Amino acid sequence: MTGQDRIPVTVIGLGSMGRALAGAFIRAGHRTTVWNRTAAKAAPLVAEGAVHEQDIAEAVAASPLVVACLTTYDATIGALEPAAGVLEGRALVTLNSGSPAQARRAAAWAAGLGARHLGGAIKNVPSAVGAADTLLYYGGDRSVFDEFEPVLRVLGGDTVHLGDDPDLAALYEMAVGGTLLPALVGFFQGAAALQARGLEAASMVRFSVKWFQMIESVLPVLAEEIDEGDYGSPLSSVNTFLAGAAHDDGFGEEAGLDVEWHRPFHDLLRRAVEDGHGEHSIAAVTEVLKRPAAAG
Amino acid sequence: MTGQDRIPVTVIGLGSMGRALAGAFIRAGHRTTVWNRTAAKAAPLVAEGAVHEQDIAEAVAASPLVVACLTTYDATIGALEPAAGVLEGRALVTLNSGSPAQARRAAAWAAGLGARHLGGAIKNVPSAVGAADTLLYYGGDRSVFDEFEPVLRVLGGDTVHLGDDPDLAALYEMAVGGTLLPALVGFFQGAAALQARGLEAASMVRFSVKWFQMIESVLPVLAEEIDEGDYGSPLSSVNTFLAGAAHDDGFGEEAGLDVEWHRPFHDLLRRAVEDGHGEHSIAAVTEVLKRPAAAG
Ligand SMILES: NC(=O)c1ccc[n+]([C@@H]2O[C@H](COP(=O)([O-])OP(=O)(O)OC[C@H]3O[C@@H](n4cnc5c(N)ncnc54)[C@H](OP(=O)(O)O)[C@@H]3O)[C@@H](O)[C@H]2O)c1
Ligand SMILES: NC(=O)c1ccc[n+]([C@@H]2O[C@H](COP(=O)([O-])OP(=O)(O)OC[C@H]3O[C@@H](n4cnc5c(N)ncnc54)[C@H](OP(=O)(O)O)[C@@H]3O)[C@@H](O)[C@H]2O)c1
Repeated sequence: MTGQDRIPVTVIGLGSMGRALAGAFIRAGHRTTVWNRTAAKAAPLVAEGAVHEQDIAEAVAASPLVVACLTTYDATIGALEPAAGVLEGRALVTLNSGSPAQARRAAAWAAGLGARHLGGAIKNVPSAVGAADTLLYYGGDRSVFDEFEPVLRVLGGDTVHLGDDPDLAALYEMAVGGTLLPALVGFFQGAAALQARGLEAASMVRFSVKWFQMIESVLPVLAEEIDEGDYGSPLSSVNTFLAGAAHDDGFGEEAGLDVEWHRPFHDLLRRAVEDGHGEHSIAAVTEVLKRPAAAG
Repeated sequence: MTGQDRIPVTVIGLGSMGRALAGAFIRAGHRTTVWNRTAAKAAPLVAEGAVHEQDIAEAVAASPLVVACLTTYDATIGALEPAAGVLEGRALVTLNSGSPAQARRAAAWAAGLGARHLGGAIKNVPSAVGAADTLLYYGGDRSVFDEFEPVLRVLGGDTVHLGDDPDLAALYEMAVGGTLLPALVGFFQGAAALQARGLEAASMVRFSVKWFQMIESVLPVLAEEIDEGDYGSPLSSVNTFLAGAAHDDGFGEEAGLDVEWHRPFHDLLRRAVEDGHGEHSIAAVTEVLKRPAAAG
């Protein structure tokens, strides 16, 4: 396939992620048209070979495949309104973050204009765009995925269609991404505790990496317990975690740290024990999450 | 080195971890003496070649190196009291969980009896004992570590002396381990959200593993920011996390889940913004943790 055979692509939104997406298409030899609200951000991409359109309708009309990467679904819909008349029949791929409900609203809006929509999400940082193992997943119109898969794969070698529901990428993004902030706050607490002892946060990184690898190794087991609803053969029990939790406050207080954020976790463990899960797998906490307590 | 050259080892405590430790010593050809409060748990190890002592003083007296793995430091001290008279000059390695304060108390108790003490922690599950990359770290008497390092290495190839303070393993164990429960609860929430849509938790495992690998890849950067106290060149800003947090409640509620546990995280983000860290790296949350809010 020569450059001229390649499908033209339009990238809407040139924030840090949009610029990385456009750069990958350009380097893969696609005729790449770009648009951004703040037009100046297009300049470096034009220098790499992109075509810059000031008018979003012109930008959309330039390609059968339009990839939008703005901050939110609302921003995406708002920015694309002037191009509503030219979206019909085109493939519109959204790659922003958002909730499943917002993804469904955007899909309904796109369907109303006759656009063929895929809702996607990229589970990595801009610098990882284009790498062989970078993961992007998509939900929605399977025919769009099948037709443009080789183009989408330019953005990351691990490119997956999750199913026909247009909110599946948003759903998985939130399901998977929900570990990030809690895990980081746990790491920050550890870093602060080491600093309180005159030690460097850097000294724990290699141990933390191993620890995350250990966590990864148990996820298949925990997922199976959750899918079977059978928590009776624990790798690690709720009671074991509760015993560990008894040290959390003292540990934080010794280092002069905020320990309030532990409280809901301790509550979840206690509620799991109350529900008879003390000697069951820690994965039984899933059942507690499914049964919200009365607002307190 | 033949089996007869090897240093005899005593293992006190035959819970799931203690059994794994004793098994590794036996398989490595060490004369292994075992003791457990509930004596019956010794039987499978005796079948593998262990010597079982009913009397803990006899068990301790059998070896120059005594490895104790009970639930807590208090349990360890309590169980070893009848052996107080024979601990002098022996190397006592504790491998239980606990707080740094408890580790210091146990070290003082051991020092009072003239025992040479190492406080250790194993950052893995019993089935990983003996593997080449299994991590165990130790704090305390360096001469004990140097003398017995080849024996300790039987328990895991990644065996590290952190420094002379006897609570360093407990400190690092808590610093590093503090990511586990928060990360798992994030995973359980995702699993429950998928189940609410009729999808299997297992379907997210491979994505979650990649996500944890992404987290691992940014830890060195975050640690450096924390060590330098310079949060000005963010990979991902506090405001970006706050924008994502806006979806947390809707996501959980759509699936009928408890969302209370998000609240302290949102509070930390908001306090970071109030402190002027909105456009700074998410690692700036470390500074918020270091400044506890008045009890609310
Ligand atoms: N960066 C990452 O690490 C990363 C990773 C995975 C997913 N994502 C997701 O990718 C999406 C974009 O992220 P980013 O990092 O590229 O963000 P960013 O650097 O802040 O860029 C935001 C982009 O959205 C545009 N925009 C925002 N509101 C707009 C509006 N009302 N009308 C028109 N354009 C608007 C901005 O235009 P202006 O230039 O005119 O402001 C800019 O092009 C987000 O949903 C983010 O969650 C990012
Ligand atoms: N299992 C893991 O995945 C894992 C991983 C890393 C670290 N650890 C740590 O390793 C330590 C042991 O864990 P484990 O999983 O082996 O626990 P376990 O299976 O519950 O076994 C606990 C052991 O402690 C003994 N014990 C408790 N209280 C005692 C007392 N007052 N007097 C005498 N013996 C007492 C028990 O004796 P009886 O048999 O008589 O009850 C048993 O031998 C804990 O600190 C744990 O946090 C465990």
